[in-house]
Amino acid sequence: MAHISLPDEELPGIVGLFHFRPETAAPLRLLADTLLRGESLLTSGERELIASYVSHLNDCHFCHTSHGAAAVAHLGCGIELIDDIKNGFNEIPVSAKLNALLNIAAKVQKSGKNVKEEDIEKARLEGAEDQEIHDTVLIAAAFCMFNRYVDGLGTWAPVPNAAYQKMGERMAFEGYVRA
Amino acid sequence: MAHISLPDEELPGIVGLFHFRPETAAPLRLLADTLLRGESLLTSGERELIASYVSHLNDCHFCHTSHGAAAVAHLGCGIELIDDIKNGFNEIPVSAKLNALLNIAAKVQKSGKNVKEEDIEKARLEGAEDQEIHDTVLIAAAFCMFNRYVDGLGTWAPVPNAAYQKMGERMAFEGYVRA
Repeated sequence: MAHISLPDEELPGIVGLFHFRPETAAPLRLLADTLLRGESLLTSGERELIASYVSHLNDCHFCHTSHGAAAVAHLGCGIELIDDIKNGFNEIPVSAKLNALLNIAAKVQKSGKNVKEEDIEKARLEGAEDQEIHDTVLIAAAFCMFNRYVDGLGTWAPVPNAAYQKMGERMAFEGYVRA
Repeated sequence: MAHISLPDEELPGIVGLFHFRPETAAPLRLLADTLLRGESLLTSGERELIASYVSHLNDCHFCHTSHGAAAVAHLGCGIELIDDIKNGFNEIPVSAKLNALLNIAAKVQKSGKNVKEEDIEKARLEGAEDQEIHDTVLIAAAFCMFNRYVDGLGTWAPVPNAAYQKMGERMAFEGYVRA
């Protein structure tokens, strides 16, 4: 049971919160769509991996698994990817550039001040441009918000990865703005 | 110097980042305006206090001081308020309800999972309604994003509180959507 009384207790994670407060849902949906599906030098698959990874670091099962499922949909790979994100990208091939960006995302998850010039340098050496560094920091920061929102209000989330597959496809291909 | 090359290095904090990436600035500005100036059972002054307090807990000088200055503008009090927020609300009278909501905000700053049923109960006993609890959690979560965005990209910020007074008035009375 969530900490507040939601209009539809069956809706998991952030979905129930969006129904509770449509006024704040609109800019949150627009932000997610812009960050994960808008124009960027990073692919949507890469951005969903960053989102899912940061959500795992924040121990937010709903966001980790749903955005992992969105990455699965974008990358056209198997659903085992979701556990692989949790286990530190052992199976999926991660480029040196994405690896350096994931390192920056992990720093941001703890605190913005943890990002050091050498983390930026490492990403640059692997070919990351300013916009990619910017988008990585902002996506990691944004999931520190989404994760806290979802867990801070005590929402429920389905457990098995497979329960998120259809949701991930909708997030990837229909986006975040349409309900 | 910021970690990335900004079009105008003179613009402090999030302002320079908004100029670097207008595509992501738009939903971020809309979110700030909705959370802090949109319809809510909490006053804008109360919401700016929560924003400034969480930003202080995240050690983000730019957000702490600018949103403290916005609270000063809304509440019509002296600029000493900004240091009072940092020192734990010794001078400004804080209602028992706002006090209980600030406790929830401080839990969210660490992790959404730190919010316990007894924290919610305490706020409810002081008269907080579901929407106020919701808005508190979301504002606290959102500043965990804004703070990480501002510091994760190494932006600069003026030091003295007085340097934020005009900015706080614009934030309070003109809002976040108009540049």
